[in-house]
Amino acid sequence: MAKPVAPRGSARERVLQAALALFMEHSVGGTSMQMIADLLGVSKPAVYYQFRSRDEIVIALVQPMFDDIVRVIKIAQSMPTPQGQRDVTVSGVVELAVRYRRLTFLFYDRAVEYAVRAREDFMASHEDVAAILHGPEPDAATRIITTTMLAGTFTAAADPELTDIDDEELHEILLATARRVMEPLS
Amino acid sequence: MAKPVAPRGSARERVLQAALALFMEHSVGGTSMQMIADLLGVSKPAVYYQFRSRDEIVIALVQPMFDDIVRVIKIAQSMPTPQGQRDVTVSGVVELAVRYRRLTFLFYDRAVEYAVRAREDFMASHEDVAAILHGPEPDAATRIITTTMLAGTFTAAADPELTDIDDEELHEILLATARRVMEPLS
Repeated sequence: MAKPVAPRGSARERVLQAALALFMEHSVGGTSMQMIADLLGVSKPAVYYQFRSRDEIVIALVQPMFDDIVRVIKIAQSMPTPQGQRDVTVSGVVELAVRYRRLTFLFYDRAVEYAVRAREDFMASHEDVAAILHGPEPDAATRIITTTMLAGTFTAAADPELTDIDDEELHEILLATARRVMEPLS
Repeated sequence: MAKPVAPRGSARERVLQAALALFMEHSVGGTSMQMIADLLGVSKPAVYYQFRSRDEIVIALVQPMFDDIVRVIKIAQSMPTPQGQRDVTVSGVVELAVRYRRLTFLFYDRAVEYAVRAREDFMASHEDVAAILHGPEPDAATRIITTTMLAGTFTAAADPELTDIDDEELHEILLATARRVMEPLS
């Protein structure tokens, strides 16, 4: 690999970071493997040596988050009561939204949606989260507040206008808000 | 205009509806003027006769919603107290999110974001809404819950998995949830 501009980390990690920066600026659909190579100052084959396709880069970027979601689901499912399972899931979701706040903008990209939907294990964890939060035969209110909580939490955590707020404060406020959203409507 | 497949409405309205259907399936970036012409069974010049560009179609689709946002802001600003202004804005936002629930998926499209950001009046109404909901010198909590409420409300209203819930029920539950989110954190 010739003339790397980012000397730290593995070649694979440098491709991921360059791709993420380009995805943020140009969207996934607007980013080519050539643009990633250009940003790193390497040849296009050098990028393809690390990843066979742009979709493979997208998957590699979101994989750690899905691995963590699976862990949260396992912890939640070990709780003895439905309420305990929901509480763990809400806390886990907020923790993930904050930890991956610089990454989750990806999920609002149609190209990422397609890449993620093609992965059965990713879709299964999405369904597991919904199943825990919904409970059996959820009514309309439960489905609406669950969607509001998930979308509101992840969007607020990723919002570029809130980057001046540090992770700890963001976490505290999002958790309090998410819990309030999830209280049953009286 | 030859062989229109959608006989009802004006030619302009038919272009808008065809474009919206294609945007939903292929994203804005993945939709060409030729694809719009093909879906309508007309020539590409016939589409260009109605709209000079794809961005102009995007703007025409979201314009009615921004006109309504401006109306909500005017009503809100006429209220005597900051709390009254916030209440009207939250109610107005929920009403808009439900009324335009088949349209708002557009805002999660990078191409739409660029077209909207280029319009100063659209950006001004976004800032007016934020200013009313935030109040002067908002703290981190106020900014986070405002973003959570807006994103959660619009995303839930637009969610394809919630289309079986009718507008009235969706409105009632979203309004109760939005109000709860906006209560000051104790």
